[in-house]
Amino acid sequence: MTAVLGDPAPAGLLDAFWAYERALMANDLEQLDRLFADRPDTLRGDAAGLLVGHEQIRRFRGGRGGARLRTVLDVHVRVLGAEHALVVAVTELERGGRGQQTQVWQRGADGWQVTAAHVTVPAAAHDARIWRVVGDPLVRPTGAGPLDGLDVAVKDLFAVAGQPVGAGNPTWLGHAPVETTHAWAVRTLLGAGAAVRGIARTDEFAYSLAGANAHHGSPPNPRAPGRISGGSSSGSASAVSLGHAAIGLGTDTGGSIRVPAAYQGLFGIRTTHGAIPTAGVLPLAPTFDTVGWLTREASLLARVGDVLLPEVAPRPVREIVVVPELLALAEPDVAEAVGAFAASVDATTESWDLAHLESWREAFRVHQAAQAWAAHGPWLRTRLDSLGPDVRARFEAAAEITSAQAVAAAIGVASAGRTIRRLVGDRVVVLPSASSVAPLLAEDVSAVRDATMRLTCLAGLGGLPAVTVPRATEEGLPCGVGLVAGPGRDRDLLGFVRDREERLRR
Amino acid sequence: MTAVLGDPAPAGLLDAFWAYERALMANDLEQLDRLFADRPDTLRGDAAGLLVGHEQIRRFRGGRGGARLRTVLDVHVRVLGAEHALVVAVTELERGGRGQQTQVWQRGADGWQVTAAHVTVPAAAHDARIWRVVGDPLVRPTGAGPLDGLDVAVKDLFAVAGQPVGAGNPTWLGHAPVETTHAWAVRTLLGAGAAVRGIARTDEFAYSLAGANAHHGSPPNPRAPGRISGGSSSGSASAVSLGHAAIGLGTDTGGSIRVPAAYQGLFGIRTTHGAIPTAGVLPLAPTFDTVGWLTREASLLARVGDVLLPEVAPRPVREIVVVPELLALAEPDVAEAVGAFAASVDATTESWDLAHLESWREAFRVHQAAQAWAAHGPWLRTRLDSLGPDVRARFEAAAEITSAQAVAAAIGVASAGRTIRRLVGDRVVVLPSASSVAPLLAEDVSAVRDATMRLTCLAGLGGLPAVTVPRATEEGLPCGVGLVAGPGRDRDLLGFVRDREERLRR
Repeated sequence: MTAVLGDPAPAGLLDAFWAYERALMANDLEQLDRLFADRPDTLRGDAAGLLVGHEQIRRFRGGRGGARLRTVLDVHVRVLGAEHALVVAVTELERGGRGQQTQVWQRGADGWQVTAAHVTVPAAAHDARIWRVVGDPLVRPTGAGPLDGLDVAVKDLFAVAGQPVGAGNPTWLGHAPVETTHAWAVRTLLGAGAAVRGIARTDEFAYSLAGANAHHGSPPNPRAPGRISGGSSSGSASAVSLGHAAIGLGTDTGGSIRVPAAYQGLFGIRTTHGAIPTAGVLPLAPTFDTVGWLTREASLLARVGDVLLPEVAPRPVREIVVVPELLALAEPDVAEAVGAFAASVDATTESWDLAHLESWREAFRVHQAAQAWAAHGPWLRTRLDSLGPDVRARFEAAAEITSAQAVAAAIGVASAGRTIRRLVGDRVVVLPSASSVAPLLAEDVSAVRDATMRLTCLAGLGGLPAVTVPRATEEGLPCGVGLVAGPGRDRDLLGFVRDREERLRR
Repeated sequence: MTAVLGDPAPAGLLDAFWAYERALMANDLEQLDRLFADRPDTLRGDAAGLLVGHEQIRRFRGGRGGARLRTVLDVHVRVLGAEHALVVAVTELERGGRGQQTQVWQRGADGWQVTAAHVTVPAAAHDARIWRVVGDPLVRPTGAGPLDGLDVAVKDLFAVAGQPVGAGNPTWLGHAPVETTHAWAVRTLLGAGAAVRGIARTDEFAYSLAGANAHHGSPPNPRAPGRISGGSSSGSASAVSLGHAAIGLGTDTGGSIRVPAAYQGLFGIRTTHGAIPTAGVLPLAPTFDTVGWLTREASLLARVGDVLLPEVAPRPVREIVVVPELLALAEPDVAEAVGAFAASVDATTESWDLAHLESWREAFRVHQAAQAWAAHGPWLRTRLDSLGPDVRARFEAAAEITSAQAVAAAIGVASAGRTIRRLVGDRVVVLPSASSVAPLLAEDVSAVRDATMRLTCLAGLGGLPAVTVPRATEEGLPCGVGLVAGPGRDRDLLGFVRDREERLRR
């Protein structure tokens, strides 16, 4: 029994309200579209964000596969002049909990129609797009130190004692043993006073830059709603963006820290290859795999480095260069933001011959793929069905690589690495962290992946540290400035960025 | 920079909007009250529920200690006739994530005022009022069986391997070791195909019936918003109410399953004392402590019993009695619902002499307290400060019990138990599960606790099984019908309730 409260309802309003409710429960898209005003300023908001215009709302409805089953408990009616009325409904969901639906209705030639709606449903136990397991905390600190009171979102590739490693794939998780010791990086963070907040989602086997896990969905990108999170350290990045955790621990093989940092407006570091032990981390391509992390502030990015990175003699950043040919690899809005950053740090402009870039990227791709198949092929061979289409296609291509191709790629990687390390020298190179802002959720990201890999493969090939500094495009979307230095100069980069951002905030 | 979109704003509207925003950020309660229309039908809703009337909204604001810091990104204005306007704001929270605020403004003698508002903020990583740790799942099943595909919210008194036992008290949690084996009940459920969804909040050391944990707040009561959850198996109950988990595993010493079941409209069972091993469960008062569980359906309540309870020869329920003197111990609305249930099962009315009830309850209280202090006094003695005021007062009183008092209480308990077991005999007794519906969050619950203990202590003293069947008062609030039987008749009770509820649903 629904209680109808408030003002006496104008003629036809409650009929329209109930017609909408029935259409919602039946997922009758035509009727739902009819009952929402066909205007560019019709609004519909929920926890995922505000949709503006009938067309956006129509597309959202078409894609969601129906609303949750519910009962309407109370309806509050408020007459707002001759043409408008407010209807606030308290709902009870079949799966449990209560929600609220606020609607502004307008009477027009087509009868009563909704021109604005705001919907709340009960929150889930946890945000399963971001977290596989989360706690308050999941693992307590084992020591005290510079990270006291901070918590870490651990990418689901790192061993956390008491939990299996899930690698973003439910079938793998189903077979994975419960770990008995923490990965080196996890153990070290716990010893420095940090707690493990939880285990964060990853793209399957970290073999993607999108974050759009086929099983768990794309973690939200709160700074750019409606756009992908970036991956593969996607859950760690979204957890930090949303304030669920202070530190997002992840890995970066071909951009898996730098890309989500750029897409979500976070600071991030991919460390020098080999600088941080990968013990207890599921490999993707060991010659490229590195440990990295994401934060909302440059000072904390550096503080985590103080804990995880080997101590080396500091070498202050003296010369910064910007390479127009690298800027040109990004979309104009991103290139502009990166160029502005370079100007602000008085970077020297330097021209690079990138004639071999395409072959470098291809060598990176093939060497990565050959290693990925070596690492996971024996297990995946009979379980390719368990993968989402993108990652599956990538592993299937990896399976086809011949040993001759793999050897040629390894040689190409070694040579490209030497060239890149020589080009960077003892300077810091400013370049785009990703080729574009975060693509829209519906977009095909394969072209974006190729364009971004052209940029991210450089640090990968050189084994170099790369820090992402968040900036915004003119349109206001997050984008990433990348700073790359010679091997082992992680702390130099972190200190430079920390000092610079602190000066900017003063 | 805030973008203002939509219709041109009427004079004064945006000034009022920004005045409200400034007042919200400053927690200027007077100004906020002024800008909300002083009417009995003013509305304000969020994920916690819908508040109706200026007074309710004022009280809510007075109690919350300010809104989260935020920036307004976009404002959408819609003119609704001469007197009304809609303002939808997209906000960005300082801690991360975006929210939405929908407001209907009305122009009156006092200028523009809000007459309806709906607010969304980003969901937390997990609902920390309900869960200490939660996962997808936290612990995988170890076998297959009748509980395949179901998940369990485990009260934070049970050992879960890989996690410490928190007992609802952060200081205890800080000292607790990581468990290496599961409690018997957890292990048995996992073996039957269930997964552990997570570790659910409890009142501190289970020494309360309220659910209002001083450190983590009161878990929501979705069936009775604004009212307490009931405890001490509070998190398990709310998790089941909200559909976070199918099964809520808990304990019942003096009502800790029956009371939250009654308050939240769930099925629940407190088992015969000793029927289910308490190995791996933190004790409160071992002579009364029992394992129990909560579900949304009677059939699942029974199915869990098939897994956890010892197999005994079934003895069908033949005679059901209802005792007017017990009904009279409840509030009239609850007594009426319980009486109606008794009539529907053709219960025989029987009069009991309850002259000793007060002394029974007191013997229960003292015997429980003496055991609670024996169990936790050595640790708590120097840590009473770590407890919330209610539980602290109870432990402090427990510390004062002399050994003579404890012995006298134990003797009283034994004698009362014999009497109660004799009174129940081989019948089933219908009585209120709790003396009232769930008290309002702000209410002082000490009188309610005493009244409910008068009812719940009976099964406790007798070591008897008690099932709660959810019903509603005439006002529509959840209340619990209790069914108590002789020792060991848990399966008889579960089967009776399952069959009866299934008949009702046909």
